[in-house]
Amino acid sequence: MPSSWGKIFKVSTFGESHGEAVGVVVEGVPAGIPIRLDEIQKDLNRRRPGQSKLTTPRDESDTVRVLSGVFEGKTIGSPIALIVNNQNTISKDYENLRETFRPSHADYTYQTKYGFRAHVGGGRSSVRETIARVAAGAIARMILEDDLGIKTVAWVDTIGTITSEIAESKYPGTREEVDVNEVRCPDPQAADKMRSLILEMKEAGDSVGGIIRSASYNLPPGLGDPVYDKLDGDIAKAILSIPACKGFEVGSGFSGTLLTGSTHNDEFYVEEGTGRVRTRTNNSGGLQGGISNGETLVVRAAFKPTSTIFKKQNTVNIDGKETTLEAKGRHDPCVLPRAVPIVEAAINLVLVDAYLYQRAMNPQWYQKWAKVPDYYKDLKL
Amino acid sequence: MPSSWGKIFKVSTFGESHGEAVGVVVEGVPAGIPIRLDEIQKDLNRRRPGQSKLTTPRDESDTVRVLSGVFEGKTIGSPIALIVNNQNTISKDYENLRETFRPSHADYTYQTKYGFRAHVGGGRSSVRETIARVAAGAIARMILEDDLGIKTVAWVDTIGTITSEIAESKYPGTREEVDVNEVRCPDPQAADKMRSLILEMKEAGDSVGGIIRSASYNLPPGLGDPVYDKLDGDIAKAILSIPACKGFEVGSGFSGTLLTGSTHNDEFYVEEGTGRVRTRTNNSGGLQGGISNGETLVVRAAFKPTSTIFKKQNTVNIDGKETTLEAKGRHDPCVLPRAVPIVEAAINLVLVDAYLYQRAMNPQWYQKWAKVPDYYKDLKL
Amino acid sequence: MPSSWGKIFKVSTFGESHGEAVGVVVEGVPAGIPIRLDEIQKDLNRRRPGQSKLTTPRDESDTVRVLSGVFEGKTIGSPIALIVNNQNTISKDYENLRETFRPSHADYTYQTKYGFRAHVGGGRSSVRETIARVAAGAIARMILEDDLGIKTVAWVDTIGTITSEIAESKYPGTREEVDVNEVRCPDPQAADKMRSLILEMKEAGDSVGGIIRSASYNLPPGLGDPVYDKLDGDIAKAILSIPACKGFEVGSGFSGTLLTGSTHNDEFYVEEGTGRVRTRTNNSGGLQGGISNGETLVVRAAFKPTSTIFKKQNTVNIDGKETTLEAKGRHDPCVLPRAVPIVEAAINLVLVDAYLYQRAMNPQWYQKWAKVPDYYKDLKL
Amino acid sequence: MPSSWGKIFKVSTFGESHGEAVGVVVEGVPAGIPIRLDEIQKDLNRRRPGQSKLTTPRDESDTVRVLSGVFEGKTIGSPIALIVNNQNTISKDYENLRETFRPSHADYTYQTKYGFRAHVGGGRSSVRETIARVAAGAIARMILEDDLGIKTVAWVDTIGTITSEIAESKYPGTREEVDVNEVRCPDPQAADKMRSLILEMKEAGDSVGGIIRSASYNLPPGLGDPVYDKLDGDIAKAILSIPACKGFEVGSGFSGTLLTGSTHNDEFYVEEGTGRVRTRTNNSGGLQGGISNGETLVVRAAFKPTSTIFKKQNTVNIDGKETTLEAKGRHDPCVLPRAVPIVEAAINLVLVDAYLYQRAMNPQWYQKWAKVPDYYKDLKL
Repeated sequence: MPSSWGKIFKVSTFGESHGEAVGVVVEGVPAGIPIRLDEIQKDLNRRRPGQSKLTTPRDESDTVRVLSGVFEGKTIGSPIALIVNNQNTISKDYENLRETFRPSHADYTYQTKYGFRAHVGGGRSSVRETIARVAAGAIARMILEDDLGIKTVAWVDTIGTITSEIAESKYPGTREEVDVNEVRCPDPQAADKMRSLILEMKEAGDSVGGIIRSASYNLPPGLGDPVYDKLDGDIAKAILSIPACKGFEVGSGFSGTLLTGSTHNDEFYVEEGTGRVRTRTNNSGGLQGGISNGETLVVRAAFKPTSTIFKKQNTVNIDGKETTLEAKGRHDPCVLPRAVPIVEAAINLVLVDAYLYQRAMNPQWYQKWAKVPDYYKDLKL
Repeated sequence: MPSSWGKIFKVSTFGESHGEAVGVVVEGVPAGIPIRLDEIQKDLNRRRPGQSKLTTPRDESDTVRVLSGVFEGKTIGSPIALIVNNQNTISKDYENLRETFRPSHADYTYQTKYGFRAHVGGGRSSVRETIARVAAGAIARMILEDDLGIKTVAWVDTIGTITSEIAESKYPGTREEVDVNEVRCPDPQAADKMRSLILEMKEAGDSVGGIIRSASYNLPPGLGDPVYDKLDGDIAKAILSIPACKGFEVGSGFSGTLLTGSTHNDEFYVEEGTGRVRTRTNNSGGLQGGISNGETLVVRAAFKPTSTIFKKQNTVNIDGKETTLEAKGRHDPCVLPRAVPIVEAAINLVLVDAYLYQRAMNPQWYQKWAKVPDYYKDLKL
Repeated sequence: MPSSWGKIFKVSTFGESHGEAVGVVVEGVPAGIPIRLDEIQKDLNRRRPGQSKLTTPRDESDTVRVLSGVFEGKTIGSPIALIVNNQNTISKDYENLRETFRPSHADYTYQTKYGFRAHVGGGRSSVRETIARVAAGAIARMILEDDLGIKTVAWVDTIGTITSEIAESKYPGTREEVDVNEVRCPDPQAADKMRSLILEMKEAGDSVGGIIRSASYNLPPGLGDPVYDKLDGDIAKAILSIPACKGFEVGSGFSGTLLTGSTHNDEFYVEEGTGRVRTRTNNSGGLQGGISNGETLVVRAAFKPTSTIFKKQNTVNIDGKETTLEAKGRHDPCVLPRAVPIVEAAINLVLVDAYLYQRAMNPQWYQKWAKVPDYYKDLKL
Repeated sequence: MPSSWGKIFKVSTFGESHGEAVGVVVEGVPAGIPIRLDEIQKDLNRRRPGQSKLTTPRDESDTVRVLSGVFEGKTIGSPIALIVNNQNTISKDYENLRETFRPSHADYTYQTKYGFRAHVGGGRSSVRETIARVAAGAIARMILEDDLGIKTVAWVDTIGTITSEIAESKYPGTREEVDVNEVRCPDPQAADKMRSLILEMKEAGDSVGGIIRSASYNLPPGLGDPVYDKLDGDIAKAILSIPACKGFEVGSGFSGTLLTGSTHNDEFYVEEGTGRVRTRTNNSGGLQGGISNGETLVVRAAFKPTSTIFKKQNTVNIDGKETTLEAKGRHDPCVLPRAVPIVEAAINLVLVDAYLYQRAMNPQWYQKWAKVPDYYKDLKL
């Protein structure tokens, strides 16, 4: 099961829902960077279960530990291993799932692929794997912030049929603006309705999906590798690999297909004062040809309603016989609020890898666009 | 510029719009497979310019040649290099683009990334690069058909606001059913309207976008590598890397966010007669947890209106000065009809790589699901 | 710092000499394989410090733990994370090394490369990293034994000027035959002299090097990927990446350059009884064109004398000033006995990856050469 | 058949001995570099057959063509495809090899691996594949020279039992000093004897091997990625992948095993005048822990006698029957003189990849050690 990615900032995750630990090894982290463990923990806390009534009550502190790659508080260039132990590993709840496949879960497909699987808590297909990405993503985030001032902020755009209304010029600039409510939707009216809908679904033993939108600010032009490792292609893959994600858009996305070229094209102009090349509209969503153009990178991701519901469903078992299943245990009636930091991590992981690759290709670009953080001055080469 | 992908069936493309040739090297092709060059050419002809009034008049025969990897008509396990010469390389048309950036093209981003670019015909960002993928995709297609009976058929689902109406049970089963009209939309009423709209746009010097839908039949369950190399993640990346693509969906996609878990979940049942495990609905789009479940793999891809239009547009030049641009030369008023075989190729390339990886992981799975083509009996191991 | 390798059986190691733990993540392990933890531990015990008077007294139990990828004793196809905690992490011994570079160690080069390093115990360049490879190599070994009957046995061929005399027909067939003495040289006369020399060096605060030879039995013909991923090239890289290794040979190696083609070529014949194609000599060392030919794979690796010695040496410090250094602490006067299992692990990791890749490429080959272990019959696909 | 390598400067080769062409695609070449085609051709001419009486008379001009990646004489960041057509493809000579395996060639192993092979001229295992590496290596060489002043010069050290005598301080500094004679051995007395031996072998229809030594000058400290992508490990793999290579050494290599730590260690000192940290001896061969230390990188590679000889040999055929074979056609009685530029290319390809990776990791290192070639000043970012 391939579980690693990245050309330079290479991320390799491991761990199942109810094994001893989940974790990640990150190669390709430059030396000399102070690793603020509390920052990693802060990101993990945003995706942690049990944050509010809207999320699963599975209680996990998700405390991160550093096993390697950091010495006296700073990176030394070697692989950074981060792990989070699983505490809440009651597998008895799952005994009925040993032989029965939950509809729209990965139980049946894992069984047909591998012939043997961990039936407890979804095993490797559990959303707990995303802990590893969020932890690695926090390191990516620090590098992007320190070197380029890039900030990625995601939020809940829609839940079911409830949509938020936030103009591009009003997009939240910090994660704090998003965390003002437990839905993570910065439109307060919409957030209220979303909250009610989610609780209603929870009550009914049902679930609901929605769309997350993300904005990445301060990307310099020139990030992303065209042809196949396009920024949007890589982000699409990173986001589609999050459990429950079924769709991805960049910029105008699907709705852009309704426009004509003359209304869709983003005309260039020179910004007064700064002299920067800008576009008047941003249907491109911050990139052209897969490369950042200096505008805000805007993407959207669709998440289906959680597959775990507490209603009786028809299904089949491992012997190919029809049967029914009634779920027990805990679940999120809506994954969106907790998926917000996972989407951000996915984007940050793609951006940092594109950034490091660009440093290899074009040192002149680095000199033009990157700030050199103070801590690099301590390096003794 | 990274231009290769695939874990085992590794594809590496090269070539610019107006260089000597575009081509592809494919590693990881098993030995002993008859390479039907006419089949590769057939796929290339479907994406070739100049097919109809709906496409660019740039005239290219796009004749493919095999430089390596094939001996006496069969693969020998070594890398297969395929090239297509560029014939129509009039660069004078482009002189005005040396210093001026076309809106919503990759001119500006290439310049800021590399500091130097081929301004003629989009250089490496040209859609001519997709020749390489279609050629490689044809080899992938043959392996998938011969070993597993897999068929991928894509078609035009919408153009601008015109949508086709084809029930899932009526999806076209062959590419011939799609090629009945030059729009490549198997709903004849919609196709007529689409054709008119495209021609109208062409007349107006404008352009239009749309959505392509693709169905892949006969996937055995178990294809795709979960966590990060999910089938849908890989396909999303492959399709988003096609020029002009701005969005991707699998199964219910964005519209699935409007449902609840109980209406969205795909219940399993046992198919009478065959005893196969099936799902009654296919909101999952043929996979769960990134792995095929035996149902039809259904994806959709959004393509923006072509950026090249024949209207005067505001833009900037290489010196950061505002200017205007009026395009000359040739272009597609709508890329969708020619993008159909490119989308198919993208999907086939992902599927064949997942298939070969699965052969490495699980020979028992291979024995259960794959047919052994006759030509393997000629192998003398 | 790239720390991963393998095309399919992908190994990713982490950990420094005096951090919390060293470990490894292995992707691409097929599902359903019983993981005998005692077998992994047995391999680790063979490389563990403190085994005899010949090795460093640093006391580490090197107890391995499985964090993921194994469920109810069997692999589930997901990444296997193995870790070994560092116990003996007295860093005070090393304070003088913060600013002073040990001759022929990696202190100076790490400093110039990264600008910041863990000066304790060699940090990432410590031989403790090889724990990770030996642990991963044990899994590789089990697969190779179970599926193909392959056995790799390495031993000490020379120490300093003392050479063992073992004809190819008398090569040890098991690791037990090698472990009869603490030098790990199956020629008892030579072993005695080697033992004395090592102890003499230990006494003198000096060190000594030597050559390890390895034989891999029962390779079916057809393993190894020609051109660049040749079996010998991959093994050379894997072995050269072990600390202190300075040379590599396959088959006749350097001495083969003294022969002519007519005396060096390995003529083929058909073995009576079995009908197998064999070669009368084995100057090729078990492979031709990088692919196994069915004969025993024989390689040799040269290890320099340990760089840590207890004599005063001239050197420079981090400020570029000349100084002297007298080592304190513990060290191996000769790394060879402990390097034996590391060399075996390196070879097994290369072989298993070549084997899995060959399964992807040629299922007919798998059917001809591989045995299907009983435990695969439990798979329910 | 995997045929690509490199983390950033990614090289992918294709082509068989008697197919239409051999070639290479190089990804990861920075933009703005003038590609001097005559420099690439010069390197190809050094490995070309038919240069002297010592080499095969197969006549090939080996003229290189650029298919992509270069625009108006400079790189544009996109993949560079270089091809060389095969002219001399008389396959009739080879008809007897369709069914009969040449001893110590890759015929038998290719057949057992793939079940089908190109029997003409060794197919993919032919030394013609190295054209691709030499061509790619020439681009690597230019970057290393322009940015870091690195020069790699290889020469023939021994042929059979004839050894040259050249002190490290007298190592040739340019390739011109090596090309003074057709043997490529800069010790004129030894070269004469070698020449006679090779011609004697040619006369006798036999062949002879030898050792190539290479020195790389002006490496800054800090190149190479420790643990697994060590400079010496990567070079070993690159060189071992050249046909006929059976052994590799770095620095003291095998003979270093005869020393003790106190005589083998390279003590550091500060060079008067420059203030550079240097070592008094160079047993390490220019690197420690896999990373360059600023001294000359010295490696040696052993090449077996050419397998093709014109004497009758016992062998087997494709049906597993014993038979005899008498070679016809052309061959090199000694590959060493032509292998010199191939070894240099292998080293340059490894060095350039390590260099680009280091640029990604440590821009401060780049600022300290790299010169910025004038042509980068033309970039307009």
